[in-house]
Amino acid sequence: MTVRVGVIMGSQSDWETMKHACDMLEELGVPYEKKVVSAHRTPDLMFEYAAAAAGRGIQVIIAGAGGAAHLPGMVAAKTELPVIGVPVKTSTLNGLDSLLSIVQMPGGIPVATVAIGHAGATNAGLLAAQILGAFEPELQAKVRARRERIAQTVIESSDLL
Amino acid sequence: MTVRVGVIMGSQSDWETMKHACDMLEELGVPYEKKVVSAHRTPDLMFEYAAAAAGRGIQVIIAGAGGAAHLPGMVAAKTELPVIGVPVKTSTLNGLDSLLSIVQMPGGIPVATVAIGHAGATNAGLLAAQILGAFEPELQAKVRARRERIAQTVIESSDLL
Amino acid sequence: MTVRVGVIMGSQSDWETMKHACDMLEELGVPYEKKVVSAHRTPDLMFEYAAAAAGRGIQVIIAGAGGAAHLPGMVAAKTELPVIGVPVKTSTLNGLDSLLSIVQMPGGIPVATVAIGHAGATNAGLLAAQILGAFEPELQAKVRARRERIAQTVIESSDLL
Amino acid sequence: MTVRVGVIMGSQSDWETMKHACDMLEELGVPYEKKVVSAHRTPDLMFEYAAAAAGRGIQVIIAGAGGAAHLPGMVAAKTELPVIGVPVKTSTLNGLDSLLSIVQMPGGIPVATVAIGHAGATNAGLLAAQILGAFEPELQAKVRARRERIAQTVIESSDLL
Amino acid sequence: MTVRVGVIMGSQSDWETMKHACDMLEELGVPYEKKVVSAHRTPDLMFEYAAAAAGRGIQVIIAGAGGAAHLPGMVAAKTELPVIGVPVKTSTLNGLDSLLSIVQMPGGIPVATVAIGHAGATNAGLLAAQILGAFEPELQAKVRARRERIAQTVIESSDLL
Amino acid sequence: MTVRVGVIMGSQSDWETMKHACDMLEELGVPYEKKVVSAHRTPDLMFEYAAAAAGRGIQVIIAGAGGAAHLPGMVAAKTELPVIGVPVKTSTLNGLDSLLSIVQMPGGIPVATVAIGHAGATNAGLLAAQILGAFEPELQAKVRARRERIAQTVIESSDLL
Amino acid sequence: MTVRVGVIMGSQSDWETMKHACDMLEELGVPYEKKVVSAHRTPDLMFEYAAAAAGRGIQVIIAGAGGAAHLPGMVAAKTELPVIGVPVKTSTLNGLDSLLSIVQMPGGIPVATVAIGHAGATNAGLLAAQILGAFEPELQAKVRARRERIAQTVIESSDLL
Amino acid sequence: MTVRVGVIMGSQSDWETMKHACDMLEELGVPYEKKVVSAHRTPDLMFEYAAAAAGRGIQVIIAGAGGAAHLPGMVAAKTELPVIGVPVKTSTLNGLDSLLSIVQMPGGIPVATVAIGHAGATNAGLLAAQILGAFEPELQAKVRARRERIAQTVIESSDLL
Repeated sequence: MTVRVGVIMGSQSDWETMKHACDMLEELGVPYEKKVVSAHRTPDLMFEYAAAAAGRGIQVIIAGAGGAAHLPGMVAAKTELPVIGVPVKTSTLNGLDSLLSIVQMPGGIPVATVAIGHAGATNAGLLAAQILGAFEPELQAKVRARRERIAQTVIESSDLL
Repeated sequence: MTVRVGVIMGSQSDWETMKHACDMLEELGVPYEKKVVSAHRTPDLMFEYAAAAAGRGIQVIIAGAGGAAHLPGMVAAKTELPVIGVPVKTSTLNGLDSLLSIVQMPGGIPVATVAIGHAGATNAGLLAAQILGAFEPELQAKVRARRERIAQTVIESSDLL
Repeated sequence: MTVRVGVIMGSQSDWETMKHACDMLEELGVPYEKKVVSAHRTPDLMFEYAAAAAGRGIQVIIAGAGGAAHLPGMVAAKTELPVIGVPVKTSTLNGLDSLLSIVQMPGGIPVATVAIGHAGATNAGLLAAQILGAFEPELQAKVRARRERIAQTVIESSDLL
Repeated sequence: MTVRVGVIMGSQSDWETMKHACDMLEELGVPYEKKVVSAHRTPDLMFEYAAAAAGRGIQVIIAGAGGAAHLPGMVAAKTELPVIGVPVKTSTLNGLDSLLSIVQMPGGIPVATVAIGHAGATNAGLLAAQILGAFEPELQAKVRARRERIAQTVIESSDLL
Repeated sequence: MTVRVGVIMGSQSDWETMKHACDMLEELGVPYEKKVVSAHRTPDLMFEYAAAAAGRGIQVIIAGAGGAAHLPGMVAAKTELPVIGVPVKTSTLNGLDSLLSIVQMPGGIPVATVAIGHAGATNAGLLAAQILGAFEPELQAKVRARRERIAQTVIESSDLL
Repeated sequence: MTVRVGVIMGSQSDWETMKHACDMLEELGVPYEKKVVSAHRTPDLMFEYAAAAAGRGIQVIIAGAGGAAHLPGMVAAKTELPVIGVPVKTSTLNGLDSLLSIVQMPGGIPVATVAIGHAGATNAGLLAAQILGAFEPELQAKVRARRERIAQTVIESSDLL
Repeated sequence: MTVRVGVIMGSQSDWETMKHACDMLEELGVPYEKKVVSAHRTPDLMFEYAAAAAGRGIQVIIAGAGGAAHLPGMVAAKTELPVIGVPVKTSTLNGLDSLLSIVQMPGGIPVATVAIGHAGATNAGLLAAQILGAFEPELQAKVRARRERIAQTVIESSDLL
Repeated sequence: MTVRVGVIMGSQSDWETMKHACDMLEELGVPYEKKVVSAHRTPDLMFEYAAAAAGRGIQVIIAGAGGAAHLPGMVAAKTELPVIGVPVKTSTLNGLDSLLSIVQMPGGIPVATVAIGHAGATNAGLLAAQILGAFEPELQAKVRARRERIAQTVIESSDLL
C-alpha cells in the first residue's frame, strides 16, 4: 500500500510525542512511514526527503521538533505538499519556543501548526486524515464515526464524577 | 464555479487581516467565499455554516479571529473538513492570546494554525491551495511557479541593499 | 430542591480541579449539578445545555476547561445567565493558555474569569454563592460567617510559624 | 432610583477605559454611580466604600485598575457582594500585569475578571446586568434583545467585506 | 530589645519561603518579629499592623505573598516606612504573577521588590539590614564581613568542580 | 549640603525616565547627585563609584538601566549601601528584560527593584526618601504630607469623570 | 581584499536592522559582503552559500532573520564556521519569536545569538571583529580603542543631564 | 599546553550545566580551564580574570550564570576576547530570566548567547571550538568529523522508533 503520510521528527527522543500521530493514522487506516530526520544534524537528508516526498506519492507530511524547531518550516520550504508541524515540549521553556519557531512562518511558506506535545501529535494524525478525507468520503466517514464514539464517551463520563 | 474554500472571520474588523487570505486564493484561482461569522455573537449561524460546508462542496475552511478566538476551534468541532485558523493581532496582547486560543486544541479536534496577523492570513490562503493541490497537479504547479517567481525576487533584492 | 448552579467541565480529567467548586457550593448549601460537557467533542450538547439552563431554574453556570478553553465563552454565547470560567492548569503552558482563552472575550459576551486551577475553582463556587447572595441575605450571611472563621484561622496560624 | 452598581477605578486616567462599563449600564437602564477610589492612595476610602456598599443597596461592584492592580481584590476582601475586576491596559506590559494582579486571587476571595481594556470594561457592564438579570426577567430580556440586535449587525456586516 | 523589622506573610504556607528572611536577620543580629497577615482574609488586621508599625519602633517591613500578591503594596499604602516585597513562587505561573503584582506599583507608593522565592527572601533580610546599616556602622560592618566570608567560599569552590 | 542619594543611569537616553527620580528627591528636599555610569562601557568607573559612595556620605543609590540591565546589581555587589534598581522600558521587550535582569538577583546581593519606567523612577525617589525617613522624622513627615495632598487630589478627581 | 565576514538576511526588509552590523564592520575595517538569502524562499541558495563560505575565505557569518527565524540555525547546520544570529524585531511578538527561534538550538549546532534588533546587529558586527581579533592583535587594538572612545563619551554625557 | 578557553560560572551549582561545555572541549582536544567566578559575590576577581585572560593566552571565554545573570556581560565589558554566555536554567522562571539578562546586551559590548541549560553548554564548547577552528584547519576538521558521526547516528536512530 502506498505511503500517503510521512511522519518525521528531529530526534529519536521526539518519538514519545510523535507516536501519538502514528497511532491515530494507524487507527484510521491511513498508510504512513516514520523517520528521524534532523534539520540541523542531517540537513541534506532533510532536503532530499522533502523534495522527493510528492514524487513518492506522499500527500501530507507531519514534522515534529522541539526548541529552535526548524524541521517543519524547512521541509515546507522544499515541498508544495501541506506540512503539519508539531511543537515538542521542551524541558526549559515547555515548548513555547518550539511553538513560536514553527508557527511564526513568514508569508509564502505555511506550516499547519497544532498544539504543543501529546495532544498536538494526536491532532496532527487526525488533521492529515481530515485533509485526505476532504477528497475521500470513506476516510471522512471514519473520522466522523470516531467523533461520534468519542462524544458518547464524553457523555457517559459525567457519571464518573 | 463551486466554492471550494470558505473564508470566515469573527468580526468585520478582522477583514484587514483576512483579505490577505482572499488575495492569495484569488491569485491562485481558487474559488472561495467570504463571510463574517461570529462564534460569540452568532453561535447558531456558526454551527449551521460549519455543519453545511462539506455538503455545499467546500473542502477547506479558513477561520480568523482575535482575543479569546473560539471561531476556528468551534467550526472544527462541527465539521470533518480541515480548518485553518488565523490568529488576528490584538491591541492588548499582540495576538499571543489569539494564537494560544486557536492552537492549543485538545486531542480529537485539530485546527491547522498559521502565524499571527497578515503573514498568517497570506499563508492560510496558500495552505488551503497546497491542501487542494495535493490532489490536483495543476494547482500544485501554480504554487510551485509562484515560489519560483518569489525566489527570483529574493535573489534580485540583494542588489537593493 | 431546584438546582441553582450548573457546574460543567470540558473533560473528566478536569474534575480534580472542578470538584473544589462543588465542595464550596456543598459547604454553603447551594444546590448544584455537575456534568462533563465538551465544547469540541459534544458541541450540540453544550449548546442545548446552555440554552436550556435558565428555563430549568439555573441562575449561574460555572464552566472549567483547559488549553484552547472554549467552553466558558461558548456557553456564555448561548445564555444570558452569568457564566463563571475556571482556567484549568495545563501540562505544557501551566494554564496561561486556558486563562487567555477564557478571559479575553470580545465586547458583548462576558465570562467572569477566576484564577487558574484549584484556587480558581474554589473561588468559582464562592463567586456563584456571592452572586446568589446579593439577592438572598441568608446566603450572604453564610459567606460572611465563613470569612470570619477563615480570618480567625489566619490569625491563629501566626503561632505555627 | 437606588444605585445598584458601583463603578470605581484606581485613577482618573482609567476613565477612558471604564466609561465603557458605564455606557453599557446606561444603555441597559441599570442605575449606577462612578467614583475614583485608589487602593494605594486612598486606602481608607476604599475600605469604607467597600464595607458600606451593600448597606447602600449596591448589588454589584465593578472595579478597574492597572499595573499592580490591587483595587478589585481589596474591595472584594471587604464586601460579600460580587466584584467584577477590569484590567486596565498599561504602557509597559500592555495590561498583562493588571490581568495577573486581578485574576490570580487566592482561594477565599473571588474577583470576576474580564478582558483587558475597552472590551473588558464593556463586558463588565454587561456582566453586572446579567447578574442582576438572573433575578429580574425584564433586565434579562433587555440583554437578550441587545444580543439579537448585535447578531443582526454581524450578519449584515458580511456585505461590507 | 525593640523589634526593628516586621516580617509578615499572606499565608502560613509562605513560611517555607519567608523563613529565609528571618534566618538572615537572625544571623546578622537584627531584632525582628514574624506574623501571618493576609491582605484578603484579614484586611483590617493588615491595615492596623501597617498603621501601627512605625509607632512601635519598626523601621522596615518585609512582606511576602504569592499570586495576586496585594500584601506588600497595601501595607506600603498604610505606612511611610520602607516596605520590601517578596514574590512567593506559585504552582501555576511560577511566581511571575506574584512578581508583577508586587513590583508594578503606581507612582506614589513604592515597594522594594526582590527576587521570586527563596533567594528573594534571603535578600529581603539582607536588604533590611543594609537599610538599617546605612545609619549604623556596626551593622554595615557585619554585612561587609559576611560578604567577605562568602567571597572566600566562592573562590574555594572552584576546587570542587 | 552633603549629597545623600546618588542617582546613576546606564546611558544618557535613560534620563527621560530617571529624571522622575530626581524630581521627587528635589520635591522632598533630599540632596542628591546624578551621573551617567555604564556597567558595560565604563565598568571601572562603575566600580569606583560604588566603592566610594558610602565614604562620600551617600546613604542610598538609585540605579536605572535597560535591557541586560547589569548596573544596579553590579553596583550592589560593590557597596553595602541599599541600592534601588529602576528597570528602564526597552523598545523590543518593553522592559520585561530590564525587570528580570534587575530583580532576579541571587541570594547574597539584594537590589530593591521598583516598577518599569516613569512610575518606577518616581517611586525610586520616594523609596529613597522613605529609607532616609525611617531615621529622620522630619523627612518622614514630608512624605506623609505629600500622601495626604495626593489623596485629596484623588478624591476630588471623581468630580472630573 | 578577501571578504572575511558574510552578512546575510532573510529579507530585504531586514536591511534596516542589519545595516548596523555592516556599519560596524566598515568602521573597524573588516572586509565583508552582504546578501539577501532566505531560508524559506531560497533554501537551495542558502545551503550553497553556507557550504561554500569557508572555501571562499569567509571566517564568520552573520545571519539576521525575524519570526520563525530559521536562517541562522540552518546556515550553522551547513558550515563549521562560527555563525552569529541576529533576531529581527517583529510587528506581532516584538522579536521574542525571532530570539527563541535562533537561540534555542539543540546540542550539536550552535548559533552565537545577540540582542533583538538594532543593538544586536551592531553587536554582531563587533562580535565578528572580536572573533577575528582574537587572532589578529591589530584588529583587537581597534576594538579596544573604540571602547575607550565610547567610555569617554559616556563619561562626558553626565554633563548633559 | 596553553589554556585557550576559559570556562567560568557564577556558582558551584552551575557546574551540572557547565560541565557539558568542558566535556565538549575535552572531546575536541581544546585546552581549557574551569573556575567559579561570581559577578556579584567576587566582583573584583571577575574583573581581574577578564582583564588578564587575553594576556594569559586565552582566546575565548565561556561564562555561565542563572537568574539576573550578569557574569557573561560584565566579563565581556572587561575584555576584547569573544565571550560566550550560557543561560543556566532557574527554578522559578526556567532560565528565561537568565536568557534575557545575557542576550539583551546594549550596542557596544556583545555576548555570544547560546541556548538555556545543558544543550546550550554543549554548544558553548562547540562554538568555542568553531571560533578557534576558523583559524586552525585541523580543529575545524575535528568538528566536521564529529558532525558526520552524529549525522550517521541520527540516520540509524530511525530504526529504533
